[in-house]
Amino acid sequence: MKATYMYGSGDVRVENVSYPTILKPTDAVIRTVVACVCGSDLWDYYNFPAGRERVAKGHETLGLVEAVGADVKNFKPGDLVVVPFVASCGTCDFCQMGLQTSCRSIEFFGHDGGAALQAEAARIPHADGTMVKLPVAADSPLIPSLLTLSDVLCTGYHAAVTAGVRPGDTVTVIGDGAVGLSAVIGAKKKGAERIILVSRHEARSALGREYGATDIVTERDAEGIARIKDLTNGDGTHRVLEAVGTQSAIDMAIAVCRAGGSVGRVGAAQYQNVPLDFGTIMRNITVTGGVAPARHYIEELMPDILDGTINPGKMFDMTVGIDDIATGYKAMADRTAIKALVQF
Amino acid sequence: MKATYMYGSGDVRVENVSYPTILKPTDAVIRTVVACVCGSDLWDYYNFPAGRERVAKGHETLGLVEAVGADVKNFKPGDLVVVPFVASCGTCDFCQMGLQTSCRSIEFFGHDGGAALQAEAARIPHADGTMVKLPVAADSPLIPSLLTLSDVLCTGYHAAVTAGVRPGDTVTVIGDGAVGLSAVIGAKKKGAERIILVSRHEARSALGREYGATDIVTERDAEGIARIKDLTNGDGTHRVLEAVGTQSAIDMAIAVCRAGGSVGRVGAAQYQNVPLDFGTIMRNITVTGGVAPARHYIEELMPDILDGTINPGKMFDMTVGIDDIATGYKAMADRTAIKALVQF
Repeated sequence: MKATYMYGSGDVRVENVSYPTILKPTDAVIRTVVACVCGSDLWDYYNFPAGRERVAKGHETLGLVEAVGADVKNFKPGDLVVVPFVASCGTCDFCQMGLQTSCRSIEFFGHDGGAALQAEAARIPHADGTMVKLPVAADSPLIPSLLTLSDVLCTGYHAAVTAGVRPGDTVTVIGDGAVGLSAVIGAKKKGAERIILVSRHEARSALGREYGATDIVTERDAEGIARIKDLTNGDGTHRVLEAVGTQSAIDMAIAVCRAGGSVGRVGAAQYQNVPLDFGTIMRNITVTGGVAPARHYIEELMPDILDGTINPGKMFDMTVGIDDIATGYKAMADRTAIKALVQF
Repeated sequence: MKATYMYGSGDVRVENVSYPTILKPTDAVIRTVVACVCGSDLWDYYNFPAGRERVAKGHETLGLVEAVGADVKNFKPGDLVVVPFVASCGTCDFCQMGLQTSCRSIEFFGHDGGAALQAEAARIPHADGTMVKLPVAADSPLIPSLLTLSDVLCTGYHAAVTAGVRPGDTVTVIGDGAVGLSAVIGAKKKGAERIILVSRHEARSALGREYGATDIVTERDAEGIARIKDLTNGDGTHRVLEAVGTQSAIDMAIAVCRAGGSVGRVGAAQYQNVPLDFGTIMRNITVTGGVAPARHYIEELMPDILDGTINPGKMFDMTVGIDDIATGYKAMADRTAIKALVQF
């Protein structure tokens, strides 16, 4: 079967590998219906570490169960499932508290020895703890939206949940990629009254408005901070959802956060430090967030997709086949596509 | 009347100044019963900025109302009151949300042009918004404990509240000064099951145990981190209350915080940055806390003092008169006293 590997900066290849099989009684094997390329897949696309071996790619998938191990109770061949971006046991203390990304038996996809999910099929460890059954057919028009439950929609929502967005809040969303746009959806779901999206890309800010953004700020850094302060009587916003991960983005997030407010950070930190100095002590700024336990949010968010309340699948503005996945990487790296769907 | 001023590093003087009077209709004038020296009073004691004018000292007081302005509705001469460490209007949006330290009409004591509260009397701005009446006589044995409502007890409690200490939690408290010891009281009030106090000072750790600490860790930095990990099966604690404010203390706080946990920081930050890198994103670490809105907590904490549940007044292990206040500063700076009470 075909699977995606990265060999170096900008060097994405599709290779034939052996078909996955059940290795443990808790495994399942799924045949992919759709997968996609994540903003985080671009980290090593931009800058592949010298001397590193090839890396299996992809951690977002939706597919049909083909086989299950002897201990798998909740799934059978033919079930359509979405797979969150890490595999988690579902029974340890962290899974029970809803923090499946700290599962004591966590297994990764797309790196650290985990399977490539940008592939025609995949072995899913901890199938009962990890996978979620979908109540639609594999050709439903809702499939792209349901695929976003594997990562970006839940990641954006995690920013809003951890930051504690409440009805009536003002919210700044920093970042107009798929996670930032999902954070807009999350902030709206939590009742934000005003959502300021930092974006300088017209197609993205238009989709952001469709998702609930009330204001677009195109400036960054000091100018962007001043603009958001202007929009909020000098106070900043109650919540800031940081969906980029650069030093500039987190610095801006802290600066535009209102006294007593909070920053939910879900951008994968490329920075080492957050500027939480004496001034932020005086302002009682909270910094929260982290890698999203997508598994925890899937059942909560799925109904909004099924009933049409939200349409996160619109973020897929490019569709490729597995053979052309490298063009999807390139388009996202060039920012000509928000997010590329891989159709099998 | 006598009031305390600092002129330089280690140079604390008591001077005669004119008696305070009502300047605004919302003011009160109180005659001091007890005041005290705060750990934060030592910042400029250690390192007074060159070229700075003298600074009025003291922001914790308890006294008898002598006079009130025409608009003061809740107090009359003779009332015994405790005064939190900033004056707040009680009516703006920040005061209404319980963040009086961000009051839109905030006035400070002890610096920024505010009155010295280490003084025989003081003008209290925003009397109705700021002061809280005490249901005891001025010679009650509870007076030292009630004085801690002006700052340290509420500050320690704020760490526990913002960090979200819940029944059954494990908690690390970094710092064995009056705020750290108050954080132990706060963690216990919130139901912590295990409270690890980082302290290498015997008298302080003994009082910490009395207040609810279950474990004492005497090591700092890497050794202290390893010790706390050992005590918690390698996980760290659910909550960390940081009551020091140095880079070393906040670094340790982050390192010993359990995945999904939170750090409540109330130590006045002498650092510029908190090490919130990619690893802390993966662990979903929250950093919260800040300067405590003491006014918000006074009514909640006072009953615990009145009924004897807590005895924070035991932190005052030295009592001085106003003429000898410099000896109180020196003892605290030398760490021979936890906290000095000034008896008038």
